[in-house]
Amino acid sequence: MMIVMKAAATEEEIQSVIGRIEAAGARAHPSRGEEVTVIGAIGDIEHIARLDLEGAPGVDHAVPILKPYKLASNQLRGGERTVVEVEGRLIGGDHFSLIAGPCTVESRDQLLSTARIVRDAGASLLRGGAYKPRTSPYAFQGLGQEGLRLLAEAKAETGLPIVTELMDARDLEPILEVADVIQVGARNMQNYPLLAEIGRSGRTTLLKRGLSATLEELLMAAEYILKEGNPNVLLCERGIRTFETAYRYTLDLTAVPVLKELSHLPVIVDPSHAAGRRDLVTPLSLAAAAAGADGIIVEVHPDPEQAICDGPQALYADRFADYVELVEQAAAVAGKALSAVR
Amino acid sequence: MMIVMKAAATEEEIQSVIGRIEAAGARAHPSRGEEVTVIGAIGDIEHIARLDLEGAPGVDHAVPILKPYKLASNQLRGGERTVVEVEGRLIGGDHFSLIAGPCTVESRDQLLSTARIVRDAGASLLRGGAYKPRTSPYAFQGLGQEGLRLLAEAKAETGLPIVTELMDARDLEPILEVADVIQVGARNMQNYPLLAEIGRSGRTTLLKRGLSATLEELLMAAEYILKEGNPNVLLCERGIRTFETAYRYTLDLTAVPVLKELSHLPVIVDPSHAAGRRDLVTPLSLAAAAAGADGIIVEVHPDPEQAICDGPQALYADRFADYVELVEQAAAVAGKALSAVR
Amino acid sequence: MMIVMKAAATEEEIQSVIGRIEAAGARAHPSRGEEVTVIGAIGDIEHIARLDLEGAPGVDHAVPILKPYKLASNQLRGGERTVVEVEGRLIGGDHFSLIAGPCTVESRDQLLSTARIVRDAGASLLRGGAYKPRTSPYAFQGLGQEGLRLLAEAKAETGLPIVTELMDARDLEPILEVADVIQVGARNMQNYPLLAEIGRSGRTTLLKRGLSATLEELLMAAEYILKEGNPNVLLCERGIRTFETAYRYTLDLTAVPVLKELSHLPVIVDPSHAAGRRDLVTPLSLAAAAAGADGIIVEVHPDPEQAICDGPQALYADRFADYVELVEQAAAVAGKALSAVR
Amino acid sequence: MMIVMKAAATEEEIQSVIGRIEAAGARAHPSRGEEVTVIGAIGDIEHIARLDLEGAPGVDHAVPILKPYKLASNQLRGGERTVVEVEGRLIGGDHFSLIAGPCTVESRDQLLSTARIVRDAGASLLRGGAYKPRTSPYAFQGLGQEGLRLLAEAKAETGLPIVTELMDARDLEPILEVADVIQVGARNMQNYPLLAEIGRSGRTTLLKRGLSATLEELLMAAEYILKEGNPNVLLCERGIRTFETAYRYTLDLTAVPVLKELSHLPVIVDPSHAAGRRDLVTPLSLAAAAAGADGIIVEVHPDPEQAICDGPQALYADRFADYVELVEQAAAVAGKALSAVR
Repeated sequence: MMIVMKAAATEEEIQSVIGRIEAAGARAHPSRGEEVTVIGAIGDIEHIARLDLEGAPGVDHAVPILKPYKLASNQLRGGERTVVEVEGRLIGGDHFSLIAGPCTVESRDQLLSTARIVRDAGASLLRGGAYKPRTSPYAFQGLGQEGLRLLAEAKAETGLPIVTELMDARDLEPILEVADVIQVGARNMQNYPLLAEIGRSGRTTLLKRGLSATLEELLMAAEYILKEGNPNVLLCERGIRTFETAYRYTLDLTAVPVLKELSHLPVIVDPSHAAGRRDLVTPLSLAAAAAGADGIIVEVHPDPEQAICDGPQALYADRFADYVELVEQAAAVAGKALSAVR
Repeated sequence: MMIVMKAAATEEEIQSVIGRIEAAGARAHPSRGEEVTVIGAIGDIEHIARLDLEGAPGVDHAVPILKPYKLASNQLRGGERTVVEVEGRLIGGDHFSLIAGPCTVESRDQLLSTARIVRDAGASLLRGGAYKPRTSPYAFQGLGQEGLRLLAEAKAETGLPIVTELMDARDLEPILEVADVIQVGARNMQNYPLLAEIGRSGRTTLLKRGLSATLEELLMAAEYILKEGNPNVLLCERGIRTFETAYRYTLDLTAVPVLKELSHLPVIVDPSHAAGRRDLVTPLSLAAAAAGADGIIVEVHPDPEQAICDGPQALYADRFADYVELVEQAAAVAGKALSAVR
Repeated sequence: MMIVMKAAATEEEIQSVIGRIEAAGARAHPSRGEEVTVIGAIGDIEHIARLDLEGAPGVDHAVPILKPYKLASNQLRGGERTVVEVEGRLIGGDHFSLIAGPCTVESRDQLLSTARIVRDAGASLLRGGAYKPRTSPYAFQGLGQEGLRLLAEAKAETGLPIVTELMDARDLEPILEVADVIQVGARNMQNYPLLAEIGRSGRTTLLKRGLSATLEELLMAAEYILKEGNPNVLLCERGIRTFETAYRYTLDLTAVPVLKELSHLPVIVDPSHAAGRRDLVTPLSLAAAAAGADGIIVEVHPDPEQAICDGPQALYADRFADYVELVEQAAAVAGKALSAVR
Repeated sequence: MMIVMKAAATEEEIQSVIGRIEAAGARAHPSRGEEVTVIGAIGDIEHIARLDLEGAPGVDHAVPILKPYKLASNQLRGGERTVVEVEGRLIGGDHFSLIAGPCTVESRDQLLSTARIVRDAGASLLRGGAYKPRTSPYAFQGLGQEGLRLLAEAKAETGLPIVTELMDARDLEPILEVADVIQVGARNMQNYPLLAEIGRSGRTTLLKRGLSATLEELLMAAEYILKEGNPNVLLCERGIRTFETAYRYTLDLTAVPVLKELSHLPVIVDPSHAAGRRDLVTPLSLAAAAAGADGIIVEVHPDPEQAICDGPQALYADRFADYVELVEQAAAVAGKALSAVR
């Protein structure tokens, strides 16, 4: 961290800052310019996390030099990328993964018919929500335990590993019985007790970016999971909140190459929740694949007009195979091939 | 809700929309213009929450007419404002409440000396964090149970009711033993299981606006608490995330009069976390009071340079009385007087 | 427009709103619900533009139904897309156009060598700035007239039509002598006198989206040009301003399919200014092409390290041909082929 | 500026950066840490403005240390604040200025009656638009020259100096004949040729912050005017664009104390355009005054329901005196008194 002192900072203020840096266990390297003095604080992440010098007497501002995350950083493995294996499916590296299924588990028929269709079209994992975070307390909140049971049945029938969302640490156990990948929704990206529990469970996690989270905050949230010894984190861009009202969220595809530069973790894109409209899902999926994403998580429904939740953004199941063909071509431009069972 | 059909919508598509509105239990009122047909859907909040017609064939877009919240709405009580009583202190109405104290409980001395100072200067409640949500897993996470014990001691000694944050539903019981007001932080504003638990507890809640939550989403989060039978919710504006990088968050004071128009619930402002810098806390506090806020939650520390967390934004305890005097004058311009013990 | 009255609106207030709608030349269609009355105002764009009913007594809010633009709207031509011809090059439809060249014209050598390279690699138009809008008055402001002269020479030598920026209506005449396409920068998107002058000139215009302009505002800006009788407007997405600080702007690729749905005008993407970093330009270009953009405007420099302005985002001229090959593949996924001279 | 090198930067890359810093006329001070090398570039604003090192080989990122503006900076005058005199009225320092009048000059009666009312209530300057920037080309664009003539008459009659907007450099001369203060609207904040012309004219300028301009960009825009030798610039906060849709813009009152810390120029607030709604204008005005603003520019109309433009946000002229009384009280809390004619 570089601490930029005010032009009017006194020698005493400079010494006080140096003292606080050293008290935190870091080393201080002052360099005195003509106009201002800049003090470098050199130490590890734990030392720096303890320093809170902005606002201290004589301090103009502090500039972080090193990234505040360590385990999520690309530097950890010297640029080698993490490839996660989920029941024989590889995610990351040269593999492009399709995670598909309904927004919400509604019924046995709906789930099983969708699962068969997405498997046959080339999806590697099945998504489906049993616990749903809803803005309104009056909206459908998911089938809960019954939904988990149906997901287990869909896995038994199709062989597809399951991605499903955990909202409450108290539901971790039943979720662990069914989920091959635990999804953390955007609203829970900074639910730290939840992240720590998932970290301790060791289960592969799809961590969605909060709707106004910076990439650094997303990586710090991943760090909460990684720190507990769970290395299997998939980062997920799902649209951020901006001033634009012509569509639900603004899908931030610049995040794809930037996250891959900052971190070794795979990057998945969710075009369905970003757009909120089916007609935008295909162009955004192609864009995500061409930008180098490691996969897409997309909503598919056999009869979207009758869907209980988010029907307008679900792809029609009977046209899903055509969609996959296009996405495969776009991924190929970025040098990736559809992930297959090993 | 008004459903605006596309200019090219067919009669069949119009009838299908009407059918879906009626199936949800609402009534459909189509009005056919020269260019487009608009269909009104009339029903209560539960009916409307079930409708998800955007993206349906022939539908251009849907326009909500009624607010999606009911218990948080100003219409509930015909414009009468909620005044919450916490251990004899009134919050809301003509009362202006000062909630003050350290960001984090650090030690017995720090907490008790601050508590005495803020009580003597006119604060009605004592704030202090025992569980701290921190962006970095390497930063200090709060004293936990020991922090709660010290808060109980501070209350016993000064008589000030306690405001402290709950991050994890599994900590609800120990928090309920100490907290007169449970704080829900911005990162947890849409942690629905947490909100529902707090709702069931009945304890007064200070609900902070998420850093990119709309006012409607804040009120929907309040609705989760109210719906469980807990009417004592204080809304808290604490700065939103914008493109501006010259300060930590952008305090949104327009939210104060607008929340008071939309809802009967008291509105509190947190200038400390918004600004992140001590020198901005006084002007923003005065602005909040003049804008008509029902109170301020502000951080005070006997020795901010030594604070473990957020020291740069803490007011100096020994100058707190001067601050209160100015805030009192600004609140008076908006027609409010400092809340006193009954 | 639908005017939603307050629940407490009086009959007199309703009649007053009806009167004002009719006075503006539109027709009023009230529909009285159980809770609120909604009044439709039916008329053309000019009538509706005169209505400013929000805030009138008894009015809760007004909801636009029709789009406020007419000539830019997709409905104008029944869904037929505009294909613009610039010196024999087609822009729009199934054509994918590459507009390439240096940020700023720096010297004869720099411009001519870049022009030859981009032409040989398949670019249809040459970009280059003679007048540069710079945030700092101390930064290089462009070569001005001398820059225009060099652009004319580059066109004579390579046959490439020229795209260059106009910042000041008083420079229109010299620009018209050189520019085949006039660029309007993001900062001038709502410089209405400039837009009207360009409209009157009839010259093809590349209109960049303001950095916090909604798509509707971009289309309204286009409408200022179209209204003067100039149908040749190219819309350009170049990144919007969000809270994210990990890169310069957030490229909004959702704008591509949405603009193509709302408007018949071609949509170009500028990945260079959005990213501000060379390493992001290729993935974002591929994403833009796969999302269905009608072209890309990209910065190329023979020696970016020595560029006077925006060197860090310029592609290396000697690797430009490889870039074009990839972009061509991505455009093909979206059904487009590189535009060729007729 | 500090240039932070990548951990993997080679000695050659470090030397190349040092070479480029020196070639721009600045001095390079490398400091080599264990993990990364940081190179300080020391020089004046012109040198630094020429450096564009982000993206250069081996460079991780560049961190500005000094502000990019000089004449607008608080350091210019050692903390002494600018007080601008306009026809005997003082703006800045301990003075609180009310600039009031209609959004648009509509008629002789409307303007003159408003002018008399606002003068009698204590306003120091009269605002009124003759040239209006409108999002829609179909909306009323102002009375133009006739509007200017009426403003001159209003000044002759009431003695109030005139504030009116300039949109087009070609209208500068007629505006200079009437305007005591030239207003630059938010959409033109980065219209650099316009700013430079105004700078050369020497006339006092009210410069509105662009709707997504950072404070630094606002000060750089002011620098364009100041650099031409015109020291009389008033900065104006008028609301920024955020994700919130419950009101038109988000008034950013944190900008008030921060601009006063960064710059010596007076800071004015426009609550009318920020809110777009009359009922919010009073609380936001009080908040602005309490936050320490040097004045308010506010819209007043004798009959807002009949206003051609922005009627919903105009205060009723016949209640303006009550408004002024409250604002005066709020300004007093911040230590300011209503500006009077000398």
